[in-house]
Amino acid sequence: MEVINDLLGYDGLKIIQRPDMFNFSLDSTLLADFVRPLAKTKKIMDLGTGNAPIPLFLSLKTKAHITGVEIQKEVFDIAVRNIELNKLTDQVTILNDDIKGLSKKFENSEFDIITCNPPFFKFNGASNTNKHDFKTIARHEVLITLEGIIIEVKRLLKTKGSFCMVHRTERIEEIILLLNKHNFSLKRLRFVYPKHGENSNAVLIDASNNGNPGLTLLEPLYVHENGGYTKEIKRIFNYGQE
Amino acid sequence: MEVINDLLGYDGLKIIQRPDMFNFSLDSTLLADFVRPLAKTKKIMDLGTGNAPIPLFLSLKTKAHITGVEIQKEVFDIAVRNIELNKLTDQVTILNDDIKGLSKKFENSEFDIITCNPPFFKFNGASNTNKHDFKTIARHEVLITLEGIIIEVKRLLKTKGSFCMVHRTERIEEIILLLNKHNFSLKRLRFVYPKHGENSNAVLIDASNNGNPGLTLLEPLYVHENGGYTKEIKRIFNYGQE
Repeated sequence: MEVINDLLGYDGLKIIQRPDMFNFSLDSTLLADFVRPLAKTKKIMDLGTGNAPIPLFLSLKTKAHITGVEIQKEVFDIAVRNIELNKLTDQVTILNDDIKGLSKKFENSEFDIITCNPPFFKFNGASNTNKHDFKTIARHEVLITLEGIIIEVKRLLKTKGSFCMVHRTERIEEIILLLNKHNFSLKRLRFVYPKHGENSNAVLIDASNNGNPGLTLLEPLYVHENGGYTKEIKRIFNYGQE
Repeated sequence: MEVINDLLGYDGLKIIQRPDMFNFSLDSTLLADFVRPLAKTKKIMDLGTGNAPIPLFLSLKTKAHITGVEIQKEVFDIAVRNIELNKLTDQVTILNDDIKGLSKKFENSEFDIITCNPPFFKFNGASNTNKHDFKTIARHEVLITLEGIIIEVKRLLKTKGSFCMVHRTERIEEIILLLNKHNFSLKRLRFVYPKHGENSNAVLIDASNNGNPGLTLLEPLYVHENGGYTKEIKRIFNYGQE
């Protein structure tokens, strides 16, 4: 079964989803909002693009060419149809490819910005996870680890290019160590909190490839209040309709 | 000139200050609030104790013995008098000593908790800083660097002992790398924001010596709202009077 949804309040965008695979997540929406394309930004890549929500969102705020990469054939097919449905085939290209080894297929240092909503969880081979399942592959590090992604990003990204990622707060220490190991500098961090009085569960990270130190820790992002979404989340959801 | 102030709203505590040296800071108050002594906590050390605000605050919430260490003789003298003034000589000892090499004077792994409000700024030898000035020594890494402090803490602290520090948010990346290098695990992080809509400028850090991974990112701490202090800051200031 397949459904076509409005991409939230976004300006006329539609998105095809298959509930048995996964729907685009709040994380992807927040990541797309967090990315800061410049006028000079020419090429953006989205790794593990799923059904392409991040390229769709980004098309609203940049003229840059966007390449989405998705390894799962059935998910890739939906991503392609989402780009066609929204008449974005000139701006967005979707590739059915593996992140691992991807940099060999491109020139070094080609991209200005790379985004990624990676698998959040380490894969422990537990019997309750099926490593061929669509959702398991998207959520667990079955096919690639965080360091594997960073290694490819390093090669694909220009010097001082921006790597924007959303991840679980509980892994922030490891993320900072790995980024440092590969000579990225943290430029912006924003912690996401489910609501007031709770601990942060997600974090938005902008790291610069061989960039200079200089971190800005942005104000926290709260998702819920008074049983609904916060004003800021509503603003993000309605981007393009303001 | 010297003044005796009430230590905010704290239960009967008084503190002697000399405005030409420095007054105890909001940072020290927040750090003392952040520390979590347990019933089994026996020994706490406060490095760079200044006029001893952190030992004074901590005496309200623990029976553990507290050792404060201050290198500057004139500041040390005031710290001693503050402990006497508050009749805490049984619980608190102040040493006039250098953090550098301090661990040689104690048994290894003696302390359960070590607190530190260290110099926040790297010392660049700029002509506008006087490296003999009380405030410069407290604020700039003239006499010891962050890594120098961590090395001493490592030796003084029990395995899985807690190292609690307040620092500038802009140095969080470096702090995490140094703590990791010396095999500390981040246990709790809390970012401090001057007010809503601004970036974080300070961070509270609790790291465990040779501890297991497992980070909790606490809710943000806002200092000001509507032209005054937030409820939480007022709560911290009035500890002991609730």
